[in-house]
Amino acid sequence: MRFKIALCQMLVSPIKEKNISHARSLIRGAAQKGAKLVVLPEMWCCPYSMKSLRDHAEDIDAQSAPSVSMLSEAASHHKITIIGGSIPEMSGDKLFNTCCVLGPDGEIIAKHRKLHLFDADLPGDLNFRESDTFAYGDGPTVVDTDVGRIGIGICHDNRFPELAILYRSRGAHLICYPGAFNMSTGELLWELMLKSRAVDNQVLYMRIVTIRYYMMSLEKFVVLVQLFVAACSPARDPDVNSDYMTWGHSSLVGPFGEIIATTGHEEDVVIGEIDYSIVQTVRENLPLESQKRGDIYQVIDTNRK
Amino acid sequence: MRFKIALCQMLVSPIKEKNISHARSLIRGAAQKGAKLVVLPEMWCCPYSMKSLRDHAEDIDAQSAPSVSMLSEAASHHKITIIGGSIPEMSGDKLFNTCCVLGPDGEIIAKHRKLHLFDADLPGDLNFRESDTFAYGDGPTVVDTDVGRIGIGICHDNRFPELAILYRSRGAHLICYPGAFNMSTGELLWELMLKSRAVDNQVLYMRIVTIRYYMMSLEKFVVLVQLFVAACSPARDPDVNSDYMTWGHSSLVGPFGEIIATTGHEEDVVIGEIDYSIVQTVRENLPLESQKRGDIYQVIDTNRK
Repeated sequence: MRFKIALCQMLVSPIKEKNISHARSLIRGAAQKGAKLVVLPEMWCCPYSMKSLRDHAEDIDAQSAPSVSMLSEAASHHKITIIGGSIPEMSGDKLFNTCCVLGPDGEIIAKHRKLHLFDADLPGDLNFRESDTFAYGDGPTVVDTDVGRIGIGICHDNRFPELAILYRSRGAHLICYPGAFNMSTGELLWELMLKSRAVDNQVLYMRIVTIRYYMMSLEKFVVLVQLFVAACSPARDPDVNSDYMTWGHSSLVGPFGEIIATTGHEEDVVIGEIDYSIVQTVRENLPLESQKRGDIYQVIDTNRK
Repeated sequence: MRFKIALCQMLVSPIKEKNISHARSLIRGAAQKGAKLVVLPEMWCCPYSMKSLRDHAEDIDAQSAPSVSMLSEAASHHKITIIGGSIPEMSGDKLFNTCCVLGPDGEIIAKHRKLHLFDADLPGDLNFRESDTFAYGDGPTVVDTDVGRIGIGICHDNRFPELAILYRSRGAHLICYPGAFNMSTGELLWELMLKSRAVDNQVLYMRIVTIRYYMMSLEKFVVLVQLFVAACSPARDPDVNSDYMTWGHSSLVGPFGEIIATTGHEEDVVIGEIDYSIVQTVRENLPLESQKRGDIYQVIDTNRK
């Protein structure tokens, strides 16, 4: 199977309605370019500020979810599959970081709640505790779509090779990670993690990110600007005072670690072509799956029904 | 704990006696530079030619093993720990690709037999079937040494994240892979695999390789020489007609994916300093281990006694 995929690396504003209509126009553009699978980033509908996430949360089960309604309309209108990045989902009194997958008929065919919340304390750099705000999702997500069997993870979910191994064992050919890696871990780890998951599991891999900002010391800013001068400035929005700046670099990587399509950190729609026969070829040439030593280690799919 | 490690990226000749005395002199040089842990490459004692491996095989259990005797003498003489790369080991009628670890008293404190044999068919490039020649090792190896708890893998063992996860779960701070990645997979995957294992498991990681040659088409040779001109020629030996040319690039990589010490593909002794407190710091800042979701996946240590 061959098809085009679009990764909408959108610029998120503080105004939810604006984000919804902006995402709609990016999806339209992607569909017009022939994309059969369109992906949005993590927390595309609102700023990634822990303080305001509850204000923007939607109740997906109660069908009171304007962001998801738009995705549903867009998927059915263009007859495409959409991996709807993530939005803050309120369920009872719990807040989740949730990705909805929509089929070409506009139905929600999967809902993934972020499994690994990002709690990190990098002294002098970054202190972030998602688990103070979000509840943990309770299961992995592999979904059969018109464009193949796809595993879903959100951002920090990508740091755990076990999850990707589990997705491959469930038959995924593509794993999709809406994400928002920050500047600290992004520069060091983003491309590395992306490639290694693809190579380890011989899957096509994809991540997609939002563009965000964080308050930083001048010293840090200079270092960052030296790295990203041309691309950082035009995305800057003085109205946004988030404490989190993302790395960008939405990418499509093939099963031998090759980057098929990527971009910088500005708003962009990355179009790449996926050809699942490449996955098959790589697996035949080097059959890692059959070379695994079940007598020494096994990744148990604890959650499987 | 802080100490110096030496990775002896030695040039292997077709003559076993010469390799043993050459390895001895590299170990001496490393010890004189202050290394407390010295590592040799995969198949350092003889050419990596499937045809001749049995001729060079040693019976370690029967103490009829000149390569291991030398390593024992060197370890006790210099009072260092040696990870003895690998040699062909004959045990009964089976041939193994085996790594001996020797303590400062000269005793063998661990023996690792390669678990994952490299069978790959890259059309027009490489066809290699180790399993036609070697038997599979039957267990993972984590060994307590004077320089910390060390996990051992040989070359292709590195392609399996489960093994590294298992080593971390058994308390390893350093994983050491004597290896001999070939040119095809080396260029694409060597640094990637090295870094990703270190980052996933927050261990210090190390691999060490031999320098070898393989028969190649002129076209291929030109491409390779364009990449490695300055370094490839002096290592070339007209007497060696192995069909396998290794990638080189012995490296020491830290737990955040940073390369601490590396080299090209010529003979070299890479000296790096290991400071286990960095491992501790990284794990405290971003506690990946405690963030794993045992309710969703578990890597089972099948072989554990």
